[in-house]
Amino acid sequence: MEEESQIIKGKYAADISSIKEAHDRIKSLILKTPVLSSASLDAMSGRQLHFKCENFQKGGAFKFRGASNAVFSLNDEEASKGVITHSSGNHAAALALAAKLRGIPAYIVIPKNAPTCKVENVKRYGGQVIWSEANMRSREEVANKVWQETGAIFIHPYNDGRILSGQGTISLEFLEQAPQIDTLVVPISGLFTFLCQSISQKCFKICFAFGIPLLIFQQMKTAGGGLISGVALAAKSINPAIRILAAEPKGADDAAQSKAAGRIITLPETNTIADGLRAFLGDFTWPVVRDLVEDIITVEDSEIIKAMKLCFEILKIVVEPSGAIGLAAVLSETFQKNPAWKDCKHIGIVVSGGNVDMAVLWDSLKK
Amino acid sequence: MEEESQIIKGKYAADISSIKEAHDRIKSLILKTPVLSSASLDAMSGRQLHFKCENFQKGGAFKFRGASNAVFSLNDEEASKGVITHSSGNHAAALALAAKLRGIPAYIVIPKNAPTCKVENVKRYGGQVIWSEANMRSREEVANKVWQETGAIFIHPYNDGRILSGQGTISLEFLEQAPQIDTLVVPISGLFTFLCQSISQKCFKICFAFGIPLLIFQQMKTAGGGLISGVALAAKSINPAIRILAAEPKGADDAAQSKAAGRIITLPETNTIADGLRAFLGDFTWPVVRDLVEDIITVEDSEIIKAMKLCFEILKIVVEPSGAIGLAAVLSETFQKNPAWKDCKHIGIVVSGGNVDMAVLWDSLKK
Repeated sequence: MEEESQIIKGKYAADISSIKEAHDRIKSLILKTPVLSSASLDAMSGRQLHFKCENFQKGGAFKFRGASNAVFSLNDEEASKGVITHSSGNHAAALALAAKLRGIPAYIVIPKNAPTCKVENVKRYGGQVIWSEANMRSREEVANKVWQETGAIFIHPYNDGRILSGQGTISLEFLEQAPQIDTLVVPISGLFTFLCQSISQKCFKICFAFGIPLLIFQQMKTAGGGLISGVALAAKSINPAIRILAAEPKGADDAAQSKAAGRIITLPETNTIADGLRAFLGDFTWPVVRDLVEDIITVEDSEIIKAMKLCFEILKIVVEPSGAIGLAAVLSETFQKNPAWKDCKHIGIVVSGGNVDMAVLWDSLKK
Repeated sequence: MEEESQIIKGKYAADISSIKEAHDRIKSLILKTPVLSSASLDAMSGRQLHFKCENFQKGGAFKFRGASNAVFSLNDEEASKGVITHSSGNHAAALALAAKLRGIPAYIVIPKNAPTCKVENVKRYGGQVIWSEANMRSREEVANKVWQETGAIFIHPYNDGRILSGQGTISLEFLEQAPQIDTLVVPISGLFTFLCQSISQKCFKICFAFGIPLLIFQQMKTAGGGLISGVALAAKSINPAIRILAAEPKGADDAAQSKAAGRIITLPETNTIADGLRAFLGDFTWPVVRDLVEDIITVEDSEIIKAMKLCFEILKIVVEPSGAIGLAAVLSETFQKNPAWKDCKHIGIVVSGGNVDMAVLWDSLKK
């Protein structure tokens, strides 16, 4: 039986009602992803771990939940002009796929330096790729121009209640599949510090040391707290006692810094190859993170790599760095040695996505 | 409602009753593995594909089903002395795990040249590793010696009714999870022609051409037709109209040759590094393959590699070569152009396992 939330309706950009409505809207479109477990990983962590495999979701990441909810929330008149976004992450592909299923155009503004696999994903789902320069200003300008020309509806990757509600459907499924869960560990945005195009010697050495294939270290694609906000709002409504922990890379701990400061902190902007994909907390997601997320566990890149290797070798699943960070957090000393988390016995880990570009990996290796 | 089989009880080493008994015995031990699907792969194959992910099974392969059925079939007196097998494949690890769960010793005779990951798996599950030379004679001699010393029960990897019954439980789950399946494609034994220790230049080139990480091309671990025999016996009993197709590598097509000749054909024995792992049809499995398997589709190694890549990139799962061969068969010209298979609309593919050794891969690359 569900214990209804004390979360006040309207306080946040989504609530249990909008999340349930989203689920009714999209459940025939999305995949109800399986929950995996492993006795070996349970032994390693000293807890019972439950992995919600959103890497198997359509489009290879949880993003399709929010995107399909947004696209199918539009009325026919709105929808007829299509949708637009600027992103070269999983949101772009997810939006293209959702638009394709609705039979409407999707205009996707992509920075020139985006990884090939991402661009191909967008094209595969019928999205119309429109190029921009590799900085946020250019992306917004190009998107604005396309909007003026087409009248398409702009769908923000995370600062949108429909997106949050869509992502929140993960909790509805997860807590039904594994109702014993007392703690959820969910990735939160940040820039993964290894980038494929500027991959460092150190990264190569670490990979060799751990004996893992050098994956494409694209940035974290959890983008702006949309995932954890939706998941937290639904989970806390279903079970107010559940603990929500965020997992964030140390090299880009804007969420942890924001939580500590009590306000949104954005890290100094850089114009690296991956700048366009960088995401900070938005005004729709920050209040949820501030109020409902108990703590943010930051982990080193080396811990994320180890966790990716465990996902490959033990769970037999392909994950991107953000997909492995929840496991990395649970195995980290920070978590293991903190008495506050001693009572976390059944931990639900959201494996956010599995889009890694093996071709680019081999290109990097051949250089 | 189940349509009961016309398969005569006692004709084969297992039947629907022994398979249902096995399921009752092991269902609390095994993982009910999920069934995945992909719109992209459906489009590529022109069919609806359903992947039964035994790579997620405990021990990383379907073998745990048969091994746990065998171990838990023993009475207490038999069990007290432990179990023994000679194998360095997935059966060894599966038997060690099953024995551990029953709290009895497992003596595993392993050839000296076995891949490290396999040996580690056996040790991880508490199996007692006993080394032999890398040929079948030595393995049998060592196993015999251990048997004389311990009185442990020998559990053959496939030529055993309890093993067949355990593997057959896959069909009980699969046809309940995806009852629309009209065709099952299942790997059949054979020696995968790429071996990690003798990995060829050609193999490297193919991998680079397809942009995939060079996995450890260990031999096929489907071992002797145990998987397809169990799966066919159960599936044909549940739905006599279902088609059972086997998938076999062209470079080791002993099953196809046997089927064509109407008798067991064993390929000339070699004493390569992987000789000990080679498996041919046994007298328990051959009658099932002869009578119930409609055809054997042989595929090139390059097709298996392509299919592994698709499993990684699209399904986001880690598979060993034998785990990908079913998909390779369905995508092959042999299958696609054969009018006999035109009516196969809902194809169930058994993904047999996911044990690939990434550390050895990197060792190979660094040489």
